[in-house]
Amino acid sequence: MRGVVMHAPGDVRVEDRGDPEIIHPTDAIIKMSATCICGSDLWPYRGADDVHDAPMGHEYVGIVEEVGSDVRNVRRGQFVVGSFVASDNTCEICRAGYQSRCVHAELMGHIGTQAQYARIPLADGTLVATPETPPAEMIPSLLAASDVLGTGWFAAVAAEAGPGKTVAVVGDGAVGLLGVLAARQLGAERVIAMSRHPDRQALAREFGATDIVEERGDEGVARIRDLTNGLGAHSVVEAVGTQQSMMQAISCTRPGGHVGFVGLSHDVALPGDELFSSMVHLHGGLAPVRRFLPELIRLIWDGEINPGKVFDLNLPLQDAAEGYKAMDERRAVKVLLTV
Amino acid sequence: MRGVVMHAPGDVRVEDRGDPEIIHPTDAIIKMSATCICGSDLWPYRGADDVHDAPMGHEYVGIVEEVGSDVRNVRRGQFVVGSFVASDNTCEICRAGYQSRCVHAELMGHIGTQAQYARIPLADGTLVATPETPPAEMIPSLLAASDVLGTGWFAAVAAEAGPGKTVAVVGDGAVGLLGVLAARQLGAERVIAMSRHPDRQALAREFGATDIVEERGDEGVARIRDLTNGLGAHSVVEAVGTQQSMMQAISCTRPGGHVGFVGLSHDVALPGDELFSSMVHLHGGLAPVRRFLPELIRLIWDGEINPGKVFDLNLPLQDAAEGYKAMDERRAVKVLLTV
Repeated sequence: MRGVVMHAPGDVRVEDRGDPEIIHPTDAIIKMSATCICGSDLWPYRGADDVHDAPMGHEYVGIVEEVGSDVRNVRRGQFVVGSFVASDNTCEICRAGYQSRCVHAELMGHIGTQAQYARIPLADGTLVATPETPPAEMIPSLLAASDVLGTGWFAAVAAEAGPGKTVAVVGDGAVGLLGVLAARQLGAERVIAMSRHPDRQALAREFGATDIVEERGDEGVARIRDLTNGLGAHSVVEAVGTQQSMMQAISCTRPGGHVGFVGLSHDVALPGDELFSSMVHLHGGLAPVRRFLPELIRLIWDGEINPGKVFDLNLPLQDAAEGYKAMDERRAVKVLLTV
Repeated sequence: MRGVVMHAPGDVRVEDRGDPEIIHPTDAIIKMSATCICGSDLWPYRGADDVHDAPMGHEYVGIVEEVGSDVRNVRRGQFVVGSFVASDNTCEICRAGYQSRCVHAELMGHIGTQAQYARIPLADGTLVATPETPPAEMIPSLLAASDVLGTGWFAAVAAEAGPGKTVAVVGDGAVGLLGVLAARQLGAERVIAMSRHPDRQALAREFGATDIVEERGDEGVARIRDLTNGLGAHSVVEAVGTQQSMMQAISCTRPGGHVGFVGLSHDVALPGDELFSSMVHLHGGLAPVRRFLPELIRLIWDGEINPGKVFDLNLPLQDAAEGYKAMDERRAVKVLLTV
């Protein structure tokens, strides 16, 4: 089969990779319908993470091609969405809703779903089938559920977005924009998107943002305070992962408020005294997307949300290298690869 | 009146200070029954915080001597307990339970309650009267409510200690020991005190600890994992405030678990990547003791808890310098000063 391999920073190629096979009886093989490029794939692309000849990709939707002998919950021919972390969904950590830290967790990024087929470990605990085979126009939204929607949703839940709350969102990438959508769906009264890009501002408004703040850093914090009687937001979603964005998120939050952080942390060190005096709740990390998948699929299936709008460039798998380049140069928010 | 002044690190004297007076109509003056020395008073005593000729003390119980014209909730002659942070208890932040970050908050430490009298700002929002004048033997416990009990309680609440939970407590000072008591009162199934001092272990057991772990750092973390099926504790109370204790607390907590931290943070920097991968909830800071005071007073009044046992040295106010020395040399856990 054909699949994406990153040989070195900036060197992405689509080439022949061996066809995946069932290794464990709990595995499934799926034939990819669509996959995509993640903002986190840009870290190795830009040389911030080590990379050598690595299969790429961790987001996926597709048709079950084959299942191992122990698989009970999905069957050949079903259309499935899965989390970017495989999980058994039965251990104590999974049952508490933290499937991304399942005691048997496997990162799909190590398998590489930017490909025609993929082996999905722990299929019963990882995959969720849609009611029927979805129409083509629904596929981008279902694909979004695999990571960026689930991650934005987790951030909003971790930030305790809900009725009566003012939620600020730091970061206007796909995850931040879907954090806006999630906050609104969870009932937030006011959702403030922090963005200085007109096209992303427009999508944020479409997803439910009530206010836009263009300022960053201390000025951004001051604007959020202006908008909240000087107190700060109840809830803040952090979807960048830098020192500046984390401190901006914490400083935008009122005492007793909640920060949900999902930006993959790079060179961040939180000063203990500032955290102590801020009195915020801090929660985040690798989103347990599997917790939210059934609900997210239902919302998409019923047409209540359309998160697939974050994909603003659609390419065939064969052109993946161009997709990486477009995201690296910020010409695209998120690239969908049709298989 | 007589009161404690710290002239420089290690230089504590009891001397004449001006009698306090009502400054604002929301003030009260109380005649101290007892006050005490806090672990946090040792930071300046040891030179870690700047100090010059500072009145000391922020914990207090006593009899209302005089009230300003706007005070409605307490009256002359009542026995009162107050938080170590004065708060209006009416602003939006107070109403959310974060009185230590009240928009009008004043730190009692700036006033100095190691004295015969003290002015209490915002008396209506800060002080809580006991049902009657308490018997002498109850005074240590009521005094503990003013800070160390309230702080340990907040830490346990922030760590979401409760039924079915395993709670680990990092730190065996007065706050950590009362974190043990709080965790047990909140219904925790198992409370693991991390302590290597036999006398503190004994008090931890008396307060409800079910297990003692003597190891620290990585070995301490490994022991907590051994005791929790390899998963880590559900809830961890951090009551020290150093880099090692914070990382120990985070590492002892299972994914999705809760860390409540109240150790006054000194030179702590939390690595973003470790926080990201830990997937713990982190919450803490300056305890909003006022939130818990009515309940804590009730528990003490009804004889359900006896937090005053953390005081293991009782001195007259005049001998405060000896009290500081005893705590500095770890000859005493916590020193009560009788006025």
